[in-house]
Amino acid sequence: MPPQDLANDQRAALDARHLIHPWTDFREQPVLILEEGNGVHVRDSNGHRMIDGIGGMWCVNIGYGRKEMAQAIAAQAEKLCYYSPFGFLSNTPSIELAAKLASYAPGDLTRVFFTTGGSTAVDTAMRLASFYFNVTGRPGKRHIITRDLAYHGSTHLSASLSGKPSDRGLIDLVEGTIHHISAPNPYRRPEGVSAEAFLDQKVQELEDKILELGSENVACFIAEPILASGGVIVPPAGYHSRTLEVCRRHDVLYISDEVVTGFGRNGAIFASEPVYGIVPDMITCAKGLTSGYVPLGAVMVSDRLYRQIAETTEGRIFANGFTYSSHPVACAAGLKNLEIMEREGICAHVREVGPYFQAALKPLMDSPIVGDVRGSHLMACVEYVSDKNARTVPPQAWQIAQRIIRETMPRGLMVRPMGSMVIMSPPLIITRAEIDELVAILREATEVVTEQLRQEGLLPLKS
Amino acid sequence: MPPQDLANDQRAALDARHLIHPWTDFREQPVLILEEGNGVHVRDSNGHRMIDGIGGMWCVNIGYGRKEMAQAIAAQAEKLCYYSPFGFLSNTPSIELAAKLASYAPGDLTRVFFTTGGSTAVDTAMRLASFYFNVTGRPGKRHIITRDLAYHGSTHLSASLSGKPSDRGLIDLVEGTIHHISAPNPYRRPEGVSAEAFLDQKVQELEDKILELGSENVACFIAEPILASGGVIVPPAGYHSRTLEVCRRHDVLYISDEVVTGFGRNGAIFASEPVYGIVPDMITCAKGLTSGYVPLGAVMVSDRLYRQIAETTEGRIFANGFTYSSHPVACAAGLKNLEIMEREGICAHVREVGPYFQAALKPLMDSPIVGDVRGSHLMACVEYVSDKNARTVPPQAWQIAQRIIRETMPRGLMVRPMGSMVIMSPPLIITRAEIDELVAILREATEVVTEQLRQEGLLPLKS
Repeated sequence: MPPQDLANDQRAALDARHLIHPWTDFREQPVLILEEGNGVHVRDSNGHRMIDGIGGMWCVNIGYGRKEMAQAIAAQAEKLCYYSPFGFLSNTPSIELAAKLASYAPGDLTRVFFTTGGSTAVDTAMRLASFYFNVTGRPGKRHIITRDLAYHGSTHLSASLSGKPSDRGLIDLVEGTIHHISAPNPYRRPEGVSAEAFLDQKVQELEDKILELGSENVACFIAEPILASGGVIVPPAGYHSRTLEVCRRHDVLYISDEVVTGFGRNGAIFASEPVYGIVPDMITCAKGLTSGYVPLGAVMVSDRLYRQIAETTEGRIFANGFTYSSHPVACAAGLKNLEIMEREGICAHVREVGPYFQAALKPLMDSPIVGDVRGSHLMACVEYVSDKNARTVPPQAWQIAQRIIRETMPRGLMVRPMGSMVIMSPPLIITRAEIDELVAILREATEVVTEQLRQEGLLPLKS
Repeated sequence: MPPQDLANDQRAALDARHLIHPWTDFREQPVLILEEGNGVHVRDSNGHRMIDGIGGMWCVNIGYGRKEMAQAIAAQAEKLCYYSPFGFLSNTPSIELAAKLASYAPGDLTRVFFTTGGSTAVDTAMRLASFYFNVTGRPGKRHIITRDLAYHGSTHLSASLSGKPSDRGLIDLVEGTIHHISAPNPYRRPEGVSAEAFLDQKVQELEDKILELGSENVACFIAEPILASGGVIVPPAGYHSRTLEVCRRHDVLYISDEVVTGFGRNGAIFASEPVYGIVPDMITCAKGLTSGYVPLGAVMVSDRLYRQIAETTEGRIFANGFTYSSHPVACAAGLKNLEIMEREGICAHVREVGPYFQAALKPLMDSPIVGDVRGSHLMACVEYVSDKNARTVPPQAWQIAQRIIRETMPRGLMVRPMGSMVIMSPPLIITRAEIDELVAILREATEVVTEQLRQEGLLPLKS
């Protein structure tokens, strides 16, 4: 049995021998073991401390090391660690968290189905859409529209909804019923197309796709308010409300995937209405719901949909759900997380420091290898290029984002490398001073890497 | 905001207004709120105490209210509540739990991929099989063989692998690549067919299906050692090893779904080898892995498969995984759970009281409405019939299992009603005295219900 105090290299060896990492190739490689977290900082197994620029992975919104979270989780684990939520069985934390979420949700999204994370929330939302159209007599509505560069999860179905080319091709996906339209990425819009025309095109593309498939065959459109893992792509203003209008016009459900944007990251518990001006038919969420302390996801469902189903099912059950749906310990974590967010005014804090973060990052545009700096509130992306004017994606051999993180980490900052982009989503409690430190490190790393590329002859020497 | 001390009926009203229960129709209905657990007992919100005959839902294996579980969970939540496990990032609890699981796993199943529960474990196993055949140059192998009455989860893919008729028909499923063969249910074997001939038929059916599809098109066969939710169907002895041989002969992966049977329920951490004599290519597990205290699932993967992939991928990544894969708090719960199981000799206890439990239930066969009593170790099913000789499933209007639970609950026992069956899977720490109490209550309930049915003219009066 591995003892608790295994030396670092022994643990790394056990990792190599036994642990399969998500999104990783299977060849042996060195690992970095994270050991502790406190506030916005994490410490690795060598004792090295860093600002966690990625908040675990878009999720540790209230920050690390919260004793009252640990206590609330422990109290529930000792009181009632688990009970089946199936059928007529229930438990108090799940009831209270459902009611609490309903109080924050836009419009009539007052019905809550709990899952174990974002993937299962999206999978369940799709299965609920299927159930809805089948029991209300429109079984033809089974096609789903999604977008290039979307990320919706890693079950067979939710992965099929994703649109990042790097994730596709080696694992079989759902065929025939899932359709991708293009991502509304203003940075990559064709030359000569105005912002207004670009928006019109993107909205039209959705309507064209619905008409092509036949609205009687389309169940839903699923969209992250900001395409997060796709590179923090912020659609042009008006995109959300206009695509929702298209969906309404054609009786297509609109599912807003707020796994990343929810729980304060955009300055609101649910961003759909206050930030993007839409009341969708369902909202999927996870991550910030518990700040990652315990796995939990949820689907917020329109009461109108719910009632339509209730009236027509005549005892037919929604044959969907997980052992760990409505998990009492996870829901207790969710309740305490929301209590902390309210008490500390974390959403208001994000609305205040979010613009500061975006403004602080913007000057990175001065760099010859930075093509775009974008984001909203406390999610941001720096996109690196090899030719700034032509907006050229650097050759993969540059390993540009990997180079950046190799420079930020020793300087005390963790960011998320992704192709030619560096992604950031720090804990929401980050201060202005910590933002300044984060940006300074990223600037220094960018300058060092620029110089490396020059030395290697990959970039022209400074003129 | 709902306060912590909401009265019972207020909570029930909030539940009806906001919480969607898994596997439930959407009409308003009364709920039973579970509040606390201790050992093998749970208490509802009225203070009523019951033996938990279903162990939460096949999962609270070490029993409720374990203070040291709560402490281990809290300690990790405070130290490092979460960090991304993607790519080169790792954390100590997941490394240690992976190594620990590998030490228990049969054969070369020493590689571990963590998920958030059983559904995501099965979904990932299928996606790994797809990845394996694609990268090793056999992309045609994409068909999956499963069984009627199987239960493998509730994602789009894992639900499609399930075979319970009541779960099918209202939500669209995967089409074309999933094939069901019949369940090896000795109780329902055709009249005149010997046990030996029945076994031969079931094994042949698998081979026939592979040959029909063409072995070059078949990826895997997935099977629970005991079909759990399907009604605790124990296949005839020899079924497991002979179906594995068939798979080996045709280069079809064998995936043993031990979400229910694992972690002591059958007297071993993994039952596949010690109880059923097979070393499969993958094992999926969840539930007892943490005794339900925190959501966690895992796929145990053959090192041979892993190495074949590693040699061929040349940097191509397994684009699969969840934010909450390798979750440090969940893995800390798994480590403590296994430590408790070892220290208290829980597997040995199950090997001792398991046969006692089965023997104690058997005399229920005396009842005119009990058709079969079956199971293994601490999982059991009592199947009710309307005609014992003809083995007739009672009319749905009898609501037979619902009637039974309505009688057991006030007497202090929770069992799981399922169609015409009552299912049991108590915490593994149950004593002989508690087993006696459980069986006595179930016997009394069965007698009361028999008398009810007689009074209602549904059963002939006693001869």
